[in-house]
Amino acid sequence: MTTGPAAGDALAEVLSAGGADLSSALERTEARLAEVAGGHGPELGRHALGTLAAGGKRLRPVLVFVCAPSGERAEDLVRAAAAVELLHMATLVHDDVLDRAPLRRGQATVFAAGGREAATATGDLLFSRAFGELTLAGEPEAVRALSSASSALARGELMQRADAWSEVVTPERYRERCELKTGALFDAACRLGALLGGAGEEAVTALSRFGSRIGLAFQIFDDVLDVSGPSERTGKPRGTDLLDGTITLPLILARGRDPELAGLDLRSVVTEAAQAEALSDRIALTGALGEAREIALGHVSEAKAAISDLELPDERRRALDRVADGVVERYA
Amino acid sequence: MTTGPAAGDALAEVLSAGGADLSSALERTEARLAEVAGGHGPELGRHALGTLAAGGKRLRPVLVFVCAPSGERAEDLVRAAAAVELLHMATLVHDDVLDRAPLRRGQATVFAAGGREAATATGDLLFSRAFGELTLAGEPEAVRALSSASSALARGELMQRADAWSEVVTPERYRERCELKTGALFDAACRLGALLGGAGEEAVTALSRFGSRIGLAFQIFDDVLDVSGPSERTGKPRGTDLLDGTITLPLILARGRDPELAGLDLRSVVTEAAQAEALSDRIALTGALGEAREIALGHVSEAKAAISDLELPDERRRALDRVADGVVERYA
Repeated sequence: MTTGPAAGDALAEVLSAGGADLSSALERTEARLAEVAGGHGPELGRHALGTLAAGGKRLRPVLVFVCAPSGERAEDLVRAAAAVELLHMATLVHDDVLDRAPLRRGQATVFAAGGREAATATGDLLFSRAFGELTLAGEPEAVRALSSASSALARGELMQRADAWSEVVTPERYRERCELKTGALFDAACRLGALLGGAGEEAVTALSRFGSRIGLAFQIFDDVLDVSGPSERTGKPRGTDLLDGTITLPLILARGRDPELAGLDLRSVVTEAAQAEALSDRIALTGALGEAREIALGHVSEAKAAISDLELPDERRRALDRVADGVVERYA
Repeated sequence: MTTGPAAGDALAEVLSAGGADLSSALERTEARLAEVAGGHGPELGRHALGTLAAGGKRLRPVLVFVCAPSGERAEDLVRAAAAVELLHMATLVHDDVLDRAPLRRGQATVFAAGGREAATATGDLLFSRAFGELTLAGEPEAVRALSSASSALARGELMQRADAWSEVVTPERYRERCELKTGALFDAACRLGALLGGAGEEAVTALSRFGSRIGLAFQIFDDVLDVSGPSERTGKPRGTDLLDGTITLPLILARGRDPELAGLDLRSVVTEAAQAEALSDRIALTGALGEAREIALGHVSEAKAAISDLELPDERRRALDRVADGVVERYA
């Protein structure tokens, strides 16, 4: 249940579909993130800037910009984009503490470099700055949306940990968890872009739904990748979710297809990397990955359907479609 | 560097000085806190409600109310009071994870009851809800103030951990840390009350300063209590700060007065409770506690001076004075 490799090509296409505006908006977001991360004392700056430098797709900022009908409030949109990314980073930093993760995207985590104290405080700072940034945009409804997403993230995180090693996680419960843990912030990113870009009420609702579904698909594909690999592409061994007891859709579906898998106690059976790889193979053999993929594709279709009735300029619809397709490409 | 026992009498007097309004405002805050803590899923609710129930002085909410010139926006003031307390609780929950603390105020911590995953997520949720609550008050400047306090808390926390076991912490650095870790949120509580209560710009500044100085004094007295005890009153053994390497003003001053103390390596000398008690006695013998107390009293005077030129109704000035004196009484 970690974030996977960049959907580089799709993002490049979104950038070109969005034109120079989107590229420059993302550059400004990057500059703003560096400013925020570096502006709160040397101790935190070191860790926060490292987290930033580790990069990532900046998919949530992209969503902010492509969902804004107008770039008139460019400064506020940049703040919103920075805010969603800061919140995302905050959760990653805290996740790494909980997972005692040494590396993220090939770089030492704050946890590894500075210890859990530094990482907890850095995460808290990033949380604070997310709200601080967004508040500057002067749109209370936007802050409410971020706050609600932030609560959802915490709930999703807790739900995931509560369900660790469980033998009875249903697809519905998995979906709810993904909606909380991933969908909510994608939803908020789209909502923020729409709100600050001056979209009408109907468009705000439609774009939020678009974001939520994209987030759901994104998470499912990510969970499929953890099982399917290849590890050269994902940058991590296969089956890491199995190793830490995170029950994802591929395993849930495979359990329904293979009674022996259903009876398996992960905690005792998967204790090292080779076993996780072997179980990954076994899950793949059941055909569960294809089924999970179909479910994710269904969410992508729902995302597109959510905005099909909106009147959008061709260029923006193209950009939104490319974002949706980019999520699919992660799997291809 | 933990929060100490309730200043019950002083608070009771503030309540009576503030009249029925303040009592009922605090009751509403309590109800709002319970609503917020319980409204985000059963897993988090259980932990968040437990944190709430563990109580505390609610000193920060009191500051919000006594700093508001008008109670006209009663609902917004309650939200602000709930927000500062939620933020405070969030930091306590995360602190307990870092300290692996089993108990706080005699109750099991979230960390002890639910593990570090649950505690980290609960802290994150409380952070989110603090901002969510305050946003509902519809005053961007208030959210900015909370966000800035929240960043300061994280910085202060990190500074404290960076300085752990250090032999070279100056009084100035200690003060900066206390301003970040404690003063900033007291400051914000006062600022929020002033802002939402419709105070003029000058009054907002003065009351913020009042809060910041009160916070500083509060922290110093708290650190003195950790050395002086008695433990029957503080509910914890003496010298807990020494045991975990937290360098506070009493030790800093004692080091200046006793060269042998200056050369002491805490990490090797204080490894168990009896040694912490013995070192506490030795610090007390240097007279450092009296000096620290004088410094704290100086901050209380500065707090009162900050608001001396403000035109305030007698009843409110009395309430503010009682809050300031209540901080002193913690030591008496």
